[in-house]
Amino acid sequence: MTPDARHQTPDHNLAGLGEKNLIERFRTRLLQAGGREALVVDVGDDTAAFRVPGAEKLTLFTCDMMVENQHFRRGWYGMTPVKLGWKALATNVSDIAAMGGRPTFALVSVALPKDTEIDYIDQIHVGLVQCAQAYGVILAGGDTVGSPGGIVIDVSLLGEVAPERILRRSGAKVGDLVAVTGPLGAAAAGLQLLESQQAIPPEADILITALLEPKPKLREAQALAATGKVTAMMDLSDGLAEDLPRLCQESGVGATVALATLPVPAASRKLGLDAVQLALQGGEDYQLLFCFAPENEAIIADALTALGSAPPVVIGEITPAEAGLKLSRADGTTDEWPVGFQHFGE
Amino acid sequence: MTPDARHQTPDHNLAGLGEKNLIERFRTRLLQAGGREALVVDVGDDTAAFRVPGAEKLTLFTCDMMVENQHFRRGWYGMTPVKLGWKALATNVSDIAAMGGRPTFALVSVALPKDTEIDYIDQIHVGLVQCAQAYGVILAGGDTVGSPGGIVIDVSLLGEVAPERILRRSGAKVGDLVAVTGPLGAAAAGLQLLESQQAIPPEADILITALLEPKPKLREAQALAATGKVTAMMDLSDGLAEDLPRLCQESGVGATVALATLPVPAASRKLGLDAVQLALQGGEDYQLLFCFAPENEAIIADALTALGSAPPVVIGEITPAEAGLKLSRADGTTDEWPVGFQHFGE
Repeated sequence: MTPDARHQTPDHNLAGLGEKNLIERFRTRLLQAGGREALVVDVGDDTAAFRVPGAEKLTLFTCDMMVENQHFRRGWYGMTPVKLGWKALATNVSDIAAMGGRPTFALVSVALPKDTEIDYIDQIHVGLVQCAQAYGVILAGGDTVGSPGGIVIDVSLLGEVAPERILRRSGAKVGDLVAVTGPLGAAAAGLQLLESQQAIPPEADILITALLEPKPKLREAQALAATGKVTAMMDLSDGLAEDLPRLCQESGVGATVALATLPVPAASRKLGLDAVQLALQGGEDYQLLFCFAPENEAIIADALTALGSAPPVVIGEITPAEAGLKLSRADGTTDEWPVGFQHFGE
Repeated sequence: MTPDARHQTPDHNLAGLGEKNLIERFRTRLLQAGGREALVVDVGDDTAAFRVPGAEKLTLFTCDMMVENQHFRRGWYGMTPVKLGWKALATNVSDIAAMGGRPTFALVSVALPKDTEIDYIDQIHVGLVQCAQAYGVILAGGDTVGSPGGIVIDVSLLGEVAPERILRRSGAKVGDLVAVTGPLGAAAAGLQLLESQQAIPPEADILITALLEPKPKLREAQALAATGKVTAMMDLSDGLAEDLPRLCQESGVGATVALATLPVPAASRKLGLDAVQLALQGGEDYQLLFCFAPENEAIIADALTALGSAPPVVIGEITPAEAGLKLSRADGTTDEWPVGFQHFGE
């Protein structure tokens, strides 16, 4: 192929191919390389899982990288370095939770511009320690390096889960209900407001907090896992439109979501935002998405309300794979599935 | 403090404080936060270590972040994306090796500029897979994100080691010999040549390869650990001048290094570089630095030569803490310890 022809290919670089396709490409390469028998859960779930010889529980392993001006801006209203540290770890805790696990040890790699104030760095560390203490994580070390660009924080987190308690994306059955733990689209609404260059109204605080200071549903996830009645689970990091197809793909099923049942934050409506659109396509909510047989709904609801948490919000049901993914409207019509979430930096 | 007064403080930002002091600052904060009883090896060694309940072996956990134009340049002579992927994992393998361990599972987080060619990214993956296969690592997944700046690769790596085999920095005894597995300063010589803006002579290839494609001493480290005669070990990532003081600090000892015994690459001398200076202060050699009682030298040498590796190069001996760190010259005089390595981006 000549260089000219090559540059006519729309997907010759990352911008053309997209992050999601690139991740898929790397996964395919890994699976082709083989030698992965030791992995109980391979790429394609919220975390990897394997068994350390002799151990009763499985070990979970995940990482998540946050890049300045790609995932956050230091100048955002309400953004503090404490929240930055908190979120860098919290997003990983959410992945461990989504497997039904308990987080254990974390490492933190941070790249920092030379002119970063020490106070600012100290406050990132405060946020990391606060999140670690809130979720029982031991920060076991890390790496700190200079950065000619912006701040980059990458956290890798281990966790543990009893083999009989692990919740994967792959167990959903036709007829299962699809549910979430709380409102969707709050973080995306916060992002839209922060990026709008307009004055931030006080009603927006709850949405901005959802974006900047996510609270992973660790207790809820463990309670759900303990029921033994959840068939599949994941956390909503890229938005329902992107994440539910992943669960369906791993489970070999389809799903229909009832638009009218999508829980949206009241603040989004009050502010005149397209709350349903944000609920579908907005990322970074870190709510749990999970499935269970209809006859177990009371057990599931009891498990959550016993914690003082909201009962599950049923948003749809699992269908055969050939039915695909659908949105159903109150008038009985259905829509095709919308495309998924793009990070603001894309 | 007024903003003006504050900016007169030399260490108000990262450039003033330095990465090493910042890492120390984070460590102090972690140790103060407490709740670290589950860590068999805490911050301050090559890796953290802990025991997964029920497991016979200890689990090792480390990470290492590489930032474009801080740790590497894409335009360097001899730099390829395959080598970039290789090195990102290899530096971590070296840390696991330094504990006497065997690497197991890795996660790879990569931040990539939008205009990165897919071919380039694919070749990074090829390098990662090549290194993983060379050292028995399973790449268990990772994260891929966009980057408004340069490329950032952060690898986190797990390993395992039998509790009786683990080699720490803390076991060196007065009278022990201090040895290394091979030439020092090769990578730093390569770096100096690459950054010199001059034409690269063919003799430099071995030095540049040392920088761009480090080969962690995993087999050597395991053979050394198996002797049961090594009292302390670490890998040389920041250079002898920086790293030996860390080993001495953890062991509560001093050390005297005989300048004339420092092994230096022949190519450095041939090219007229200050080979001894590079051997002392140059980082990224990934040779092993280790200690043992003089009576065990033959056992140690046999363990290495049985692999087809070079025998250990004894470069000095461990002294009481109050003797501090010294360089001794052939004429019997001693020098104070030189300051350590700075990454080129600092």
